[in-house]
Amino acid sequence: MKLIRFQAADGKEKYGIVENENNIYIVKGAPFGKIKPTIEKYDIRMVKILTPCIPTKIIGIGLNYKEHVEELNQSIPDEPIIFLKPVSGLIAHLESIIYPPKVNRVDYEAELAIIIKNEIKNITSDQAKDNILGYTCLNDVTARELQQKDIQWTRAKSFDTFCPVGPHILIDDTIDANNLKIELFLNGEIKQSSNTNNLIFSLEKIVSYVSGIMTLYPGDIITTGTPKGIGPMKKGDIVEVKIENIGTLKNYIG
Amino acid sequence: MKLIRFQAADGKEKYGIVENENNIYIVKGAPFGKIKPTIEKYDIRMVKILTPCIPTKIIGIGLNYKEHVEELNQSIPDEPIIFLKPVSGLIAHLESIIYPPKVNRVDYEAELAIIIKNEIKNITSDQAKDNILGYTCLNDVTARELQQKDIQWTRAKSFDTFCPVGPHILIDDTIDANNLKIELFLNGEIKQSSNTNNLIFSLEKIVSYVSGIMTLYPGDIITTGTPKGIGPMKKGDIVEVKIENIGTLKNYIG
Repeated sequence: MKLIRFQAADGKEKYGIVENENNIYIVKGAPFGKIKPTIEKYDIRMVKILTPCIPTKIIGIGLNYKEHVEELNQSIPDEPIIFLKPVSGLIAHLESIIYPPKVNRVDYEAELAIIIKNEIKNITSDQAKDNILGYTCLNDVTARELQQKDIQWTRAKSFDTFCPVGPHILIDDTIDANNLKIELFLNGEIKQSSNTNNLIFSLEKIVSYVSGIMTLYPGDIITTGTPKGIGPMKKGDIVEVKIENIGTLKNYIG
Repeated sequence: MKLIRFQAADGKEKYGIVENENNIYIVKGAPFGKIKPTIEKYDIRMVKILTPCIPTKIIGIGLNYKEHVEELNQSIPDEPIIFLKPVSGLIAHLESIIYPPKVNRVDYEAELAIIIKNEIKNITSDQAKDNILGYTCLNDVTARELQQKDIQWTRAKSFDTFCPVGPHILIDDTIDANNLKIELFLNGEIKQSSNTNNLIFSLEKIVSYVSGIMTLYPGDIITTGTPKGIGPMKKGDIVEVKIENIGTLKNYIG
């Protein structure tokens, strides 16, 4: 199922599941309990879509696709390289990424993001799947020139609006999230095209590794790295992260 | 005044002001409203001290004391270098910093931390003071070997318990926080000794700079860098960050 968080005309935040593209059925028990659909229905075109979860933190994994490591002239890491993005950078599907003043190059980075289900610490890779709520699309927006200048990646990845995520969370135990096509489109033109089976560190390995450093809480996001093909966006562009079986996250550049 | 957050015997979280070392008077309006003391009193030795604020994020400033930059063989930055610490790493006064498995060197870093008062974005240095609630002590605990290995500082600074903060927030407009003695004691022996007047970027400049990147929220923490004299702690040690007029943050190494 595709779990979405949205605001209806009454201003209240609700959870629902998306069916047949445009129908949202309100659910009980979301996001972390046993999710039960109701017959209360909304038209997705008539609501404001929100970020699909409310994390306490967002952990990124750098250099996790071999061909992306090569395009950056870096070497393949022997352990995942982690960084943090602030929750203040989150925006939802259809919202605008805003170019900060004095920043000349803002890049897209298509990524598959993991949404954590339970409070976990020090779990094994085998325990990871039971502690993942589901998967969504994330654009790890990066001010490339500042990333190179600072060496530390934080500033480049922490501006407001630099963390589009959504539109919904795919909750489906039958899907192998380590084998999904991942693509990025800029104004409809394909710019990144890979498959999560090219990840250097698998999704389960990543969750285990991060949980060995810090306690993860329900709703926390781990974004798992971008494939090759990174590049800049300019004002007026439309950027889409599309992941097989999950969906398409669309944002505007303002 | 010294604003403290604590848990009394009834299990409830309360805010109070500390007077004469051991007395806590419960206050109304804390932490962000007009703070008014009451006559309800607690003995600080009989309560559990909590982190003095509940941040949505913790921003660190690297390389902000000239002599510390030199001891790391780095060059003086022309802009503040920022990093993030996860809120999951927070611990309070008198709690224990836990050595992670397979980590061989965990260092103290004495720092003055700024607590943000209002939601702010893109403010000037002149506007900073009105948007600072107060100041506290912070130990930017760092797994030094991992900081060097990863290049990115995130893992080294993000382990659970690696962000002791407190014991209270100094709220006092008459004090110049850019001119306070800052010291670190390890088992009673002085290891770091400087003054915040040695900061490369002033407190107001830092708040303005960070607010130009990301929206800051009430309770958010900006920790402002450590002076020279960094070094390792071992299990069984007692570490204290002492800042003039603010107080002493004491933690154990477990």
